[in-house]
Amino acid sequence: MSAEARIRDSFARQSMMTTLGAELVAVAEGRVAVAATVAEGLRQQAGYAHAALIFALGDTAAGYAALTVMPPDVDVLTVEMKINLLSPGAGRLVAEGRVLKPGRRLVVVAADVWSEVDGKRTLAAVLQGTMIPVA
Amino acid sequence: MSAEARIRDSFARQSMMTTLGAELVAVAEGRVAVAATVAEGLRQQAGYAHAALIFALGDTAAGYAALTVMPPDVDVLTVEMKINLLSPGAGRLVAEGRVLKPGRRLVVVAADVWSEVDGKRTLAAVLQGTMIPVA
Amino acid sequence: MSAEARIRDSFARQSMMTTLGAELVAVAEGRVAVAATVAEGLRQQAGYAHAALIFALGDTAAGYAALTVMPPDVDVLTVEMKINLLSPGAGRLVAEGRVLKPGRRLVVVAADVWSEVDGKRTLAAVLQGTMIPVA
Amino acid sequence: MSAEARIRDSFARQSMMTTLGAELVAVAEGRVAVAATVAEGLRQQAGYAHAALIFALGDTAAGYAALTVMPPDVDVLTVEMKINLLSPGAGRLVAEGRVLKPGRRLVVVAADVWSEVDGKRTLAAVLQGTMIPVA
Repeated sequence: MSAEARIRDSFARQSMMTTLGAELVAVAEGRVAVAATVAEGLRQQAGYAHAALIFALGDTAAGYAALTVMPPDVDVLTVEMKINLLSPGAGRLVAEGRVLKPGRRLVVVAADVWSEVDGKRTLAAVLQGTMIPVA
Repeated sequence: MSAEARIRDSFARQSMMTTLGAELVAVAEGRVAVAATVAEGLRQQAGYAHAALIFALGDTAAGYAALTVMPPDVDVLTVEMKINLLSPGAGRLVAEGRVLKPGRRLVVVAADVWSEVDGKRTLAAVLQGTMIPVA
Repeated sequence: MSAEARIRDSFARQSMMTTLGAELVAVAEGRVAVAATVAEGLRQQAGYAHAALIFALGDTAAGYAALTVMPPDVDVLTVEMKINLLSPGAGRLVAEGRVLKPGRRLVVVAADVWSEVDGKRTLAAVLQGTMIPVA
Repeated sequence: MSAEARIRDSFARQSMMTTLGAELVAVAEGRVAVAATVAEGLRQQAGYAHAALIFALGDTAAGYAALTVMPPDVDVLTVEMKINLLSPGAGRLVAEGRVLKPGRRLVVVAADVWSEVDGKRTLAAVLQGTMIPVA
């Protein structure tokens, strides 16, 4: 199974991705993009994207980016993740994950999450974290 | 309006909390607890609580803990949050947020997220972050 | 060699600890404290303790706390560390590190760094991070 | 006074920079680089650059990058900083700081720290954090 097929399979098994209406939009070596519309049920008290939605997309994009550089028989889990929220998320969110440092024991990753409203793209958040392979 | 009433009002306006089935379980000066059951639609690929659910509860508990130490007319937003995931989340999750350092310009917060299965409580995650008051 | 003896030996081999005038002040299972005076050459532009000094003490206390729960033949390295600076550091700094979650593959740690001036103790920083055992 | 002159002046007042043998190597709008040789007194137990040295350079480069986008009469302080250590630091370290999001209340920053040995450049660490302007 190709890395993309494995990732699509894993993504489909994450029920949270369905709940959030998220979709895989790009898979390449060391880079994965995940997107979702800021639906009615995914907001914070002021009507913007909830931080947990932004986190979910960024963490997932980063995790699958790590998976592209791992052997076929392993999964990855998030060890830790740090998010800085730069501006409110609205419209459509696109998270672009990337591998900063592959490794056998740990993979260091990052993700940018963009907010797209009326064709205008704003950086909503940046994430930096660590993934660990599990059998 | 009391701090608790303001927090309950704000919580009810966060549609994400409804989507996640989360509830406010305790509000005290500098301390707020939020809980949710790991429902079917909130899981990762191995069937455990999705990291985004754990993040959502921890971030929300920490944010409302910050709100208890702010003037009545302000809201708070997450500036940044770091999560370390310690063990898989399952059953019922309880996030306990607390203020580490109140401030006029920023409030430093932390949260522990516990996983409760068959009466056994395990620390699933710890979060440390910064909240900013907004008018 | 006891955990404390191994830690004292490792500490002595860290030339940075000598440069910073740091000393080990307590070693217990899962808990280590490290301290230093904010000497003339360790300051930032306003005369307070440089963030790197505060980081150094907190990271070292947390790392050695992790070492107390590892087998005798391994060393630990910092994978990642997050610091929130709460108030200016001055006088004498005492970092108290602790293990949040021991593990064979990773150890999650935290540290509080206190600033002591004229007998008054203020929390200067909190750290949360991950250590990895190395042969 | 130009941004570069203000930064050089501030840098000179940080006694820790002298202790670490650090120097400002580049100042541009939103970007600052700081470097140091891994001198004998700046090492960890295995002889590599101490994490605190890597942190110091990255945090300083990021902080001064923030200063380039602030009004002339303010200084900046680190609110929080997260570092992921990717590979051992040795030889000469060069930290490249950049502004991710300028702001009146907060500036979000990042830095990469490179290790240069025998003309070969390796990414030693990545940092992501928040700076706050102070009068």
